[in-house]
Amino acid sequence: MKRIFEVDPWKVATHKFSPVDKRLQESITAIGNDYMGMRGNFEEGYSGDQLQGTYLAGVWFPDKTRVGWWKNGYPKYFGKSINAPSFIGIGITVNNEKIDLAKIKFTDFYFELDMHQGLLSRSFIYEGANTKVKFEFQRFLHIRLKEAALITVKATVLAGQAEIEFNSTLDGTVTNEDSNYNEHFWLSCNENAAKRSIQVITKPNPYDVPQFTVLLKAGLRNNNHIVKGTVKTATAKLSEKLAVTLNAGESYTLEKDVIVITSRDVAPEKQSDRADKLMQQLQSKSFAENLADHTAVWQDRWTKSDVVITGNDEAQQGIRFNILQLFMTYYGEDKRLNIGPKGFTGEKYGGATYWDTEAFIFPMYLCITKPNVTRALLQYRHDQLDGAYYNAQQQGLAGALFPMVTFNGIECHNEWEITFEEIHRNEDIPFAIKRYTSYTGDESYVKNEGMDVLVGTARFWADRVHYSKWRQKYVIHGVTGPDEYDNNVNNNWFTNIMAQWVLQYTLERLPLADKAAQERLNVTKEEQAKWQDIIENIYLPEDKERGIFLQQDDFLDKDIRPATEIPLDQRPINQHWSWDKILRSPFIKQADVLQGIYYLDDRFTKEQKERNFAFYEPLTVHESSLSACIHSILAAELGRKKQSVEFYERTARLDLDNYNNDTDDGLHITSMSGSWLAIVQGFAGMRYGHNQLRFNPFVPDNWTGYSFKINYRGRLIQVEVTQQETRITLISGKELTILVKEQKVTLKEGEQNCLKA
Amino acid sequence: MKRIFEVDPWKVATHKFSPVDKRLQESITAIGNDYMGMRGNFEEGYSGDQLQGTYLAGVWFPDKTRVGWWKNGYPKYFGKSINAPSFIGIGITVNNEKIDLAKIKFTDFYFELDMHQGLLSRSFIYEGANTKVKFEFQRFLHIRLKEAALITVKATVLAGQAEIEFNSTLDGTVTNEDSNYNEHFWLSCNENAAKRSIQVITKPNPYDVPQFTVLLKAGLRNNNHIVKGTVKTATAKLSEKLAVTLNAGESYTLEKDVIVITSRDVAPEKQSDRADKLMQQLQSKSFAENLADHTAVWQDRWTKSDVVITGNDEAQQGIRFNILQLFMTYYGEDKRLNIGPKGFTGEKYGGATYWDTEAFIFPMYLCITKPNVTRALLQYRHDQLDGAYYNAQQQGLAGALFPMVTFNGIECHNEWEITFEEIHRNEDIPFAIKRYTSYTGDESYVKNEGMDVLVGTARFWADRVHYSKWRQKYVIHGVTGPDEYDNNVNNNWFTNIMAQWVLQYTLERLPLADKAAQERLNVTKEEQAKWQDIIENIYLPEDKERGIFLQQDDFLDKDIRPATEIPLDQRPINQHWSWDKILRSPFIKQADVLQGIYYLDDRFTKEQKERNFAFYEPLTVHESSLSACIHSILAAELGRKKQSVEFYERTARLDLDNYNNDTDDGLHITSMSGSWLAIVQGFAGMRYGHNQLRFNPFVPDNWTGYSFKINYRGRLIQVEVTQQETRITLISGKELTILVKEQKVTLKEGEQNCLKA
Repeated sequence: MKRIFEVDPWKVATHKFSPVDKRLQESITAIGNDYMGMRGNFEEGYSGDQLQGTYLAGVWFPDKTRVGWWKNGYPKYFGKSINAPSFIGIGITVNNEKIDLAKIKFTDFYFELDMHQGLLSRSFIYEGANTKVKFEFQRFLHIRLKEAALITVKATVLAGQAEIEFNSTLDGTVTNEDSNYNEHFWLSCNENAAKRSIQVITKPNPYDVPQFTVLLKAGLRNNNHIVKGTVKTATAKLSEKLAVTLNAGESYTLEKDVIVITSRDVAPEKQSDRADKLMQQLQSKSFAENLADHTAVWQDRWTKSDVVITGNDEAQQGIRFNILQLFMTYYGEDKRLNIGPKGFTGEKYGGATYWDTEAFIFPMYLCITKPNVTRALLQYRHDQLDGAYYNAQQQGLAGALFPMVTFNGIECHNEWEITFEEIHRNEDIPFAIKRYTSYTGDESYVKNEGMDVLVGTARFWADRVHYSKWRQKYVIHGVTGPDEYDNNVNNNWFTNIMAQWVLQYTLERLPLADKAAQERLNVTKEEQAKWQDIIENIYLPEDKERGIFLQQDDFLDKDIRPATEIPLDQRPINQHWSWDKILRSPFIKQADVLQGIYYLDDRFTKEQKERNFAFYEPLTVHESSLSACIHSILAAELGRKKQSVEFYERTARLDLDNYNNDTDDGLHITSMSGSWLAIVQGFAGMRYGHNQLRFNPFVPDNWTGYSFKINYRGRLIQVEVTQQETRITLISGKELTILVKEQKVTLKEGEQNCLKA
Repeated sequence: MKRIFEVDPWKVATHKFSPVDKRLQESITAIGNDYMGMRGNFEEGYSGDQLQGTYLAGVWFPDKTRVGWWKNGYPKYFGKSINAPSFIGIGITVNNEKIDLAKIKFTDFYFELDMHQGLLSRSFIYEGANTKVKFEFQRFLHIRLKEAALITVKATVLAGQAEIEFNSTLDGTVTNEDSNYNEHFWLSCNENAAKRSIQVITKPNPYDVPQFTVLLKAGLRNNNHIVKGTVKTATAKLSEKLAVTLNAGESYTLEKDVIVITSRDVAPEKQSDRADKLMQQLQSKSFAENLADHTAVWQDRWTKSDVVITGNDEAQQGIRFNILQLFMTYYGEDKRLNIGPKGFTGEKYGGATYWDTEAFIFPMYLCITKPNVTRALLQYRHDQLDGAYYNAQQQGLAGALFPMVTFNGIECHNEWEITFEEIHRNEDIPFAIKRYTSYTGDESYVKNEGMDVLVGTARFWADRVHYSKWRQKYVIHGVTGPDEYDNNVNNNWFTNIMAQWVLQYTLERLPLADKAAQERLNVTKEEQAKWQDIIENIYLPEDKERGIFLQQDDFLDKDIRPATEIPLDQRPINQHWSWDKILRSPFIKQADVLQGIYYLDDRFTKEQKERNFAFYEPLTVHESSLSACIHSILAAELGRKKQSVEFYERTARLDLDNYNNDTDDGLHITSMSGSWLAIVQGFAGMRYGHNQLRFNPFVPDNWTGYSFKINYRGRLIQVEVTQQETRITLISGKELTILVKEQKVTLKEGEQNCLKA
């Protein structure tokens, strides 16, 4: 754990700059507007160790697969959201000394992410030989005018005289640290000095992945007036220099306006005109006016979705940070997009689509966005069904296999134990259909496109199981469950029970599907009978004596001992132990059996849940960002309140407190919903199965209360919980009867229902 | 199966040239002299698809590891025997047309490897517009003057007039196809036109692996007279051109003499002088005289080691080819060397050391070479013990872990399921100590250096097992057994029983070790007691009902069905199936349980052997070159004569008939001993445990007989087996009583013992 920012309910701020934490700082100060995003790099540049990163949603490159030994079935490329041309650059010299925090003398460093609107501010005082200059930066990515980035830098001379030169740059010569073969992914198309623009294109590839063309255009203003400097261009680069001389007490503010257009929206030959128009639109308002427009949108988002925690600023800061970062990554406004594990904040995992979306993001977005957003997330997978059929075929299997990592539906991960084996994604994705249907009550998806997905995955599972004559059961060999610290196991309980669930749900919903869907899918009676046979005879490993489900065959054969026995200086184990030691250990990366219990919540008794929790949690090292929230929710249900809160803290502040010592790479975007789920499904005990919304709330001991809002079947409902009472208000929408602690409560629009704790 | 050479007892020859089989042809026509070797590339060059390859024993490069995702414990580099500077080049033009079999018109192609002495001959008739020229090449690598390669090309004009230009080259600009990052491994040191030499050095590396410097020097002769052409040099290249004009009926022979010196033997600054001296020595004799010297050495080798098969030329050709290729790779003359899976015949696996040496080469070399050769192979591992301790430490384990792939003792393979898991190598290597001791009767190694190896590996195993409270047994999790078509399994029977064996043998021999060894190893009573506890309580999976040992936990849970159910067009499965499908299948790559039964031969009853053979063999696809020989030996013992012979044929002609469709990469050198073992341990039933040499011979139905010789404790014994009788002759050495078909036979020097079949 390492905390480098101060605790504050609405700010993430620090007065310290520590070069060894530069990357961590950059990750936490990342901003985005669900069109593009960037790490908290410094405008003036930085010569020390850093990870320069700008990312454009949906702009990616198929990087030729790099493996030690090729295995049949490996995909040809690994897709990555590539580092995009950088546009924040405003190099600065003062009396010919380059401003570079790695080298100059400075004081009064301050860096702040204002969570009201994702506004990044930074300031410091440069101390030259005879000069002192205060620099203040502000930057935001416009949430309404998505293509726009706005930056200001204000220089105030505190002592001496300063000739200050600003060098505003656009730079397409960027690279990825994680490039497999140290290739440059961008080629120059042209540089236009007059228009202050550069245009670049991703290099050609042999995989039929379209090339992306991006145009960047910059403009400079001072006090809202356009100013022009000396422009120079080089291949994929443009710079515009401007110098001012200031005496003590004088200041100068340079405003840099940037427009970024991609070929996802505008054909390359039209990008320049489009950029001109958008720049005009942007510059028709001042920086302050643009910021006000931007902030108004954020204000609205917070009004609908803020979670207020009273009595604990750490908890409050954690959840706001997560909600902000999630919304900066994805707000459902572009149906072609999805949510990457690191969003716009780093390279590793980057902006590709993983099962994280369905398993962790989906249940939160179901409650906080309109149903069309989650439906779009479902549709995203339906649109990629061809790829899923292709993936299954590559493995020699029937049906559709959704990918572990993808941009277009085609698998692009290249570890066999993941690519070929971590196939539970083919359960998590169908399960989101059930969640959607169950929460929204909208059956139209599952009756049509949803049925394509269900039947495709059911066919995969029916082929992927095999019948063990020895066990007289259907078994599933060679999988990696959610616990990636065990690979290539047989009969992972989670995978097996969820495969059974896919077949069950598909069979159950099939007769209710639209006629057209039934016809095009043509599931024969024989096929249905086969599925039924698998459902009835699938092997679900358990230890009856201990009353637990077995994570996999042989699990009990491990050297079972609690994770507390691991010396603290060996945590996280994935950074200290050899892979061999990790695999053989009894230690679990993230919820596995417990993930299944969380999914299929109403199938298990409280006693079953308790026994499994009591067995597995002590073995779990929670080194996946996806682990703590599931444990928080289950612990809450089991009355393990203290543990539940501990897990909440871990999920809420995973990045702010760098729990897993890996936030320097980027934020754990897709697990950020975990803190919201921990509060709503955990502390407030929300459930919604069987068309019945339910709550079972409690308040953590060290909080005074919390409140949140959910969208439920056309209603906006606010839930406020304190140590004394629970207040539930139907802000808008039709009357609804819910259960609170098993008691019926009928909500009426505009009325608050107050229940004693 | 694909056979491109004709069947002949002493030749591997063909009259056909097929460009699609060029790489296969090159592999089979590879030659070597256990100092260097090369594929059967064409002297005049070839513009079609080929794999150009020259390799120098012990000259390697640490190529930076390439993996998809780094795992803790991976080695930093993958060592490879790199493609060395090429010296065979004699470019030819006839009336300005370049001779290139990919482009010219030609007839009467003939290519022959004479197995008497590893002499390569090739001829063809070039048909130009008005000219016909016959070209005849000969080439060998001198077996006595190891640094020397000799090549002749004779041009005879059959029609028309021909201006023939020869261009003799030395080329250090070669690359490896398997280079991880497309790097060149060689840098130029200098080129010396006057001395007709080039000198190159391997590029620097950050891994403390020494750089190798190589000098090549060429000279030309005609009819034994030195001739000089026009020399040109370029970076790491030298060429010498010479032209002759011939009329019909005239011929010209160019002899190219080459000396190759490496820094393994001669310091870089002394290489030039050394090369001058060796060239003088070489050129003091004619090509024919040098060839005669060379052939005399081979004659002696064959006299001692030839296996004669009567009545079956295919079988005869197979074993001679294997013996020739083995001897061309390693004859025990340089103690720093070992035997690579592909020897000098290709890149993949190349000349690195694998467990193949101890498991497959060692038992043959024990019988056909003097004990100092196998002792040197043991010593090779002892010399690398520091590396083995380092490897274990990298995995967080105690003791010594010998590497899967190495040049210097440090592991340099980078697939986790192999590097971290295929640890049975740490049993095969100690087992060779027992074999050596048991066969030679020489106890001096096991009492001293051998004990270092035994204790190091025993300590590894004692740490690598863990106690399963559930099973109340010691178990070994996360291994890959000899069957590499199953990865990361628990309790592989072979690995478990051999770990037990290591502990047993170490405990048994420890009190007999030299005092000094006992003192330096300091195995405490407690440690010994712990080992004894593991020995007594290690879990050895078996199915009592079927009476078989289980290859691993869950093996019976597979979809057990015979390999004959695999459609022929899907064989070999490793070229047709996804890795996922292979791993989950019941199909076995090579002997696994049966490998253990072969090793610990005298622990099992014939019934146990038969039941395990009957269960496992039908599941085995034999897609490792190491599989057939073990099956041949066991089948012979079990009276499954027909099967035994089939496996013999497969092991003997694996490369000649390209059984596994992968000989184009190079020959399977380390499995070539398999055919010898199949005859000696299989058909002749030789065993040597308990200080008793035994035979139990039979003759395959479609042979008339076979004979071989073995070296046994200072004796040379010849065994001749026909359908009618077995003749055993003690050619030299002290009287010895052996068992033949359980009957005592006393051998006396010079006497032949004849026993009816």
